[in-house]
Amino acid sequence: MTLATWSKYSEWPMLGVAVLFLAAYSAQVIASLRPAQHSALEAVIWVTWAVFAFDYAIHLWLAPRRKRWFLKNLHELALLILPVLRPLQLLRLITLMQFFHRAGGNALRGRIVAYVMASAALLIYAGALAVLDVEQNAEGSNLTTFGDALWWAMTTITTVGYGDHYPVTGLGRLVAAGLMVGGVAVIGVVTASVASWLVENVADRDTDAAGNDPALTREVARLSRQIDQLSAQLADRGQPAAHDGQENRA
Amino acid sequence: MTLATWSKYSEWPMLGVAVLFLAAYSAQVIASLRPAQHSALEAVIWVTWAVFAFDYAIHLWLAPRRKRWFLKNLHELALLILPVLRPLQLLRLITLMQFFHRAGGNALRGRIVAYVMASAALLIYAGALAVLDVEQNAEGSNLTTFGDALWWAMTTITTVGYGDHYPVTGLGRLVAAGLMVGGVAVIGVVTASVASWLVENVADRDTDAAGNDPALTREVARLSRQIDQLSAQLADRGQPAAHDGQENRA
Amino acid sequence: MTLATWSKYSEWPMLGVAVLFLAAYSAQVIASLRPAQHSALEAVIWVTWAVFAFDYAIHLWLAPRRKRWFLKNLHELALLILPVLRPLQLLRLITLMQFFHRAGGNALRGRIVAYVMASAALLIYAGALAVLDVEQNAEGSNLTTFGDALWWAMTTITTVGYGDHYPVTGLGRLVAAGLMVGGVAVIGVVTASVASWLVENVADRDTDAAGNDPALTREVARLSRQIDQLSAQLADRGQPAAHDGQENRA
Amino acid sequence: MTLATWSKYSEWPMLGVAVLFLAAYSAQVIASLRPAQHSALEAVIWVTWAVFAFDYAIHLWLAPRRKRWFLKNLHELALLILPVLRPLQLLRLITLMQFFHRAGGNALRGRIVAYVMASAALLIYAGALAVLDVEQNAEGSNLTTFGDALWWAMTTITTVGYGDHYPVTGLGRLVAAGLMVGGVAVIGVVTASVASWLVENVADRDTDAAGNDPALTREVARLSRQIDQLSAQLADRGQPAAHDGQENRA
Repeated sequence: MTLATWSKYSEWPMLGVAVLFLAAYSAQVIASLRPAQHSALEAVIWVTWAVFAFDYAIHLWLAPRRKRWFLKNLHELALLILPVLRPLQLLRLITLMQFFHRAGGNALRGRIVAYVMASAALLIYAGALAVLDVEQNAEGSNLTTFGDALWWAMTTITTVGYGDHYPVTGLGRLVAAGLMVGGVAVIGVVTASVASWLVENVADRDTDAAGNDPALTREVARLSRQIDQLSAQLADRGQPAAHDGQENRA
Repeated sequence: MTLATWSKYSEWPMLGVAVLFLAAYSAQVIASLRPAQHSALEAVIWVTWAVFAFDYAIHLWLAPRRKRWFLKNLHELALLILPVLRPLQLLRLITLMQFFHRAGGNALRGRIVAYVMASAALLIYAGALAVLDVEQNAEGSNLTTFGDALWWAMTTITTVGYGDHYPVTGLGRLVAAGLMVGGVAVIGVVTASVASWLVENVADRDTDAAGNDPALTREVARLSRQIDQLSAQLADRGQPAAHDGQENRA
Repeated sequence: MTLATWSKYSEWPMLGVAVLFLAAYSAQVIASLRPAQHSALEAVIWVTWAVFAFDYAIHLWLAPRRKRWFLKNLHELALLILPVLRPLQLLRLITLMQFFHRAGGNALRGRIVAYVMASAALLIYAGALAVLDVEQNAEGSNLTTFGDALWWAMTTITTVGYGDHYPVTGLGRLVAAGLMVGGVAVIGVVTASVASWLVENVADRDTDAAGNDPALTREVARLSRQIDQLSAQLADRGQPAAHDGQENRA
Repeated sequence: MTLATWSKYSEWPMLGVAVLFLAAYSAQVIASLRPAQHSALEAVIWVTWAVFAFDYAIHLWLAPRRKRWFLKNLHELALLILPVLRPLQLLRLITLMQFFHRAGGNALRGRIVAYVMASAALLIYAGALAVLDVEQNAEGSNLTTFGDALWWAMTTITTVGYGDHYPVTGLGRLVAAGLMVGGVAVIGVVTASVASWLVENVADRDTDAAGNDPALTREVARLSRQIDQLSAQLADRGQPAAHDGQENRA
């Protein structure tokens, strides 16, 4: 079996595992659970982790050039090893989201905006979950409910930053840094989409009115008329010349 | 009657109803009213709601493909059903604003900037109104006057976010999220307009100086001169050839 | 005397008056003065105001179509009438700054960036001055020194907004709103300048590598070779044909 | 020896000196040292300063037009004289970073993004270091640990600005202003890179579909066919004409 075949057949099951992981993680962080429930969810999270590790191992096994694949996919290994960054595994959902949208529409800009919006929503959800996980039992924390964490994530990704809620632990601040970088990227893509739309539309209008270098177009049109005249001249001369020949022969 | 006819004739009356709704809503939220006045304004708001519902029903009734229209206009239904989002109905004003500006000017970029400024102003006003409506009686709120709410909306839409005022309820934070998204969009459009202006103007200058691929232009000009020479050559040969013919005949 | 002549000769004196106004206003707001000094500066400010009013009147008098000039320059009238907005008169410095830079350089983007930086610096200074003027004696104010006001203006124009200092009066918030809008514009121009530079340079590189539609260029080159051959063919035939004529004649 | 030779051979040693300076400065600011250690690091910092001063003097000595070089490199002199701005010397690392990346890749946009990311990281580290140096012993300061300073630098450069930590001294605020300006530039470059990518890719797609002014391309293709026909006509006539000549001669 090749790497491409495995990727193709494992895609949908891995999406399901990722959703299961998200659900278990969310329940554990947000809900107030009895110890038995908490342990059950912990088991589910570890099973999904094992499935991701297995998928990683299979990918590494099937890769034609293992060392190269390993070096190019160090981030996958980091996602497996660092338990705090587990919410980042949810970013796989975005990669997989392409399959939903592939059928519909071919407007590049529209698709990019759709992905960015979906990524931003997932980033806000996962960031709020991760920061709540880290901060809710920290000393001096002001992020103790999921509502506050979502609100904080929203103010962070848009770079508003009221400061009514903010992380106080190192890990919480690392999550925040990820959200800030995501926010700058989101603002960048939104702005760039508008800009590329404007550049294209205003430019189109100009091109419609004035043409693609009108001087060159006129010059080529003049050439064309000249060659038409040449053709006509040669055709005219062709017949008298034939006549000449007949006269000469006569 | 067709959908287009209804839209055309209902446009101006619906604009009036929207302004009436805005005035009644504003008075109810900002002013300190006697119970009788409050009830009267409540009645006005419900009547304007009924008119919007009636307009929605007519649109649905007249649509050639009702199911499709229904699915494409779910946001209209949401605006009717969710009472909290009522200020969003004011966004209709922006759509209608096109009719004021349609006559004047054809500069695409200028019109976009004008609409964005108008939308931002309306968004700030409606956001301040909505957040004050939700927050002014909430526990622990720090948004209790319309001045504070306007100031908060301004700091939010520009993503400054001092944090001297901020919403504390879920609905207030939902309104804030709308303003933040609006703010990112406003920054995007402003930046994009400047960028498209710069790209166009700097590019124009380059094109004026250097031409649209000068090598191609020179090549076409050389072609043109060659064909002129060919023409002249043929014309010269045309006369001697005619002379030959005469000599031959003689 | 025409409007253009007056504008030309009054430009430099008006710049001096604007600087004098700025110095007097600054001293009055920042320094702790004795009453006599305060009154003297107040007189200077009123005299500069009178000069601006006189300049406005002369402009209106000399304008060929007075009503049109009046309607197009309502902002000038507003600057004269609203005493709070007086620091905005300093924006004239930016218009006049063009004369300093006119001699040096013709790179459009560089000039725009230079103006924006100069405008931002002036906006920060004038905003800090204006907010301090309004807030320093207000109740509950936290903007009481010029250092704090400058720091606040910097955090506002870059949309950082820590919230350690912020205006609490209506007029102070109006000044803040101006700084925020200026900040969004500054970010827009910086981003747009980088974007237009990137678009141009990356595009130039592509054009160098691949040519301006290489198919068209190749086609024109092939045309050119064909016409060279035609020319040669005709030239060859021109001599045998002349030879023919001689033979015929012989 | 010329200026270019000196620059070439001094580049790597100066990079080493800059790293040594950074390490000594960092240790002095972050670690709690015994007086002897502190003095040793102070000596290292002064030695690195002397090396930078020596390098400056050599550059000035070797410059072909000393006065011009002096005026164009006033910022170098300022970096030598102002001890507070010493972290800015680290910006040399960014200039030198070009040598690492020069071998790999020729994608202009990718390189710009890589440099900006590296610059942003260095700016955050140096900004945190500088602000901690200035603020940690200031009265009323809330930036007392390196973790807090890094977190503050991150919230500042992304323009989030929660306001849980902020500088209170003049020098600290100057460092903050540098970070804010850097943040606006970073946002600008990220946005611009996305925009230029979008403009290029969406434009490429359009060009693939519609061609570079298809009318012009069609016209040139028609010209080409006409000239082929002309050539063929002339070739045909060339042989009968030769035949005529033979018939005449016969």
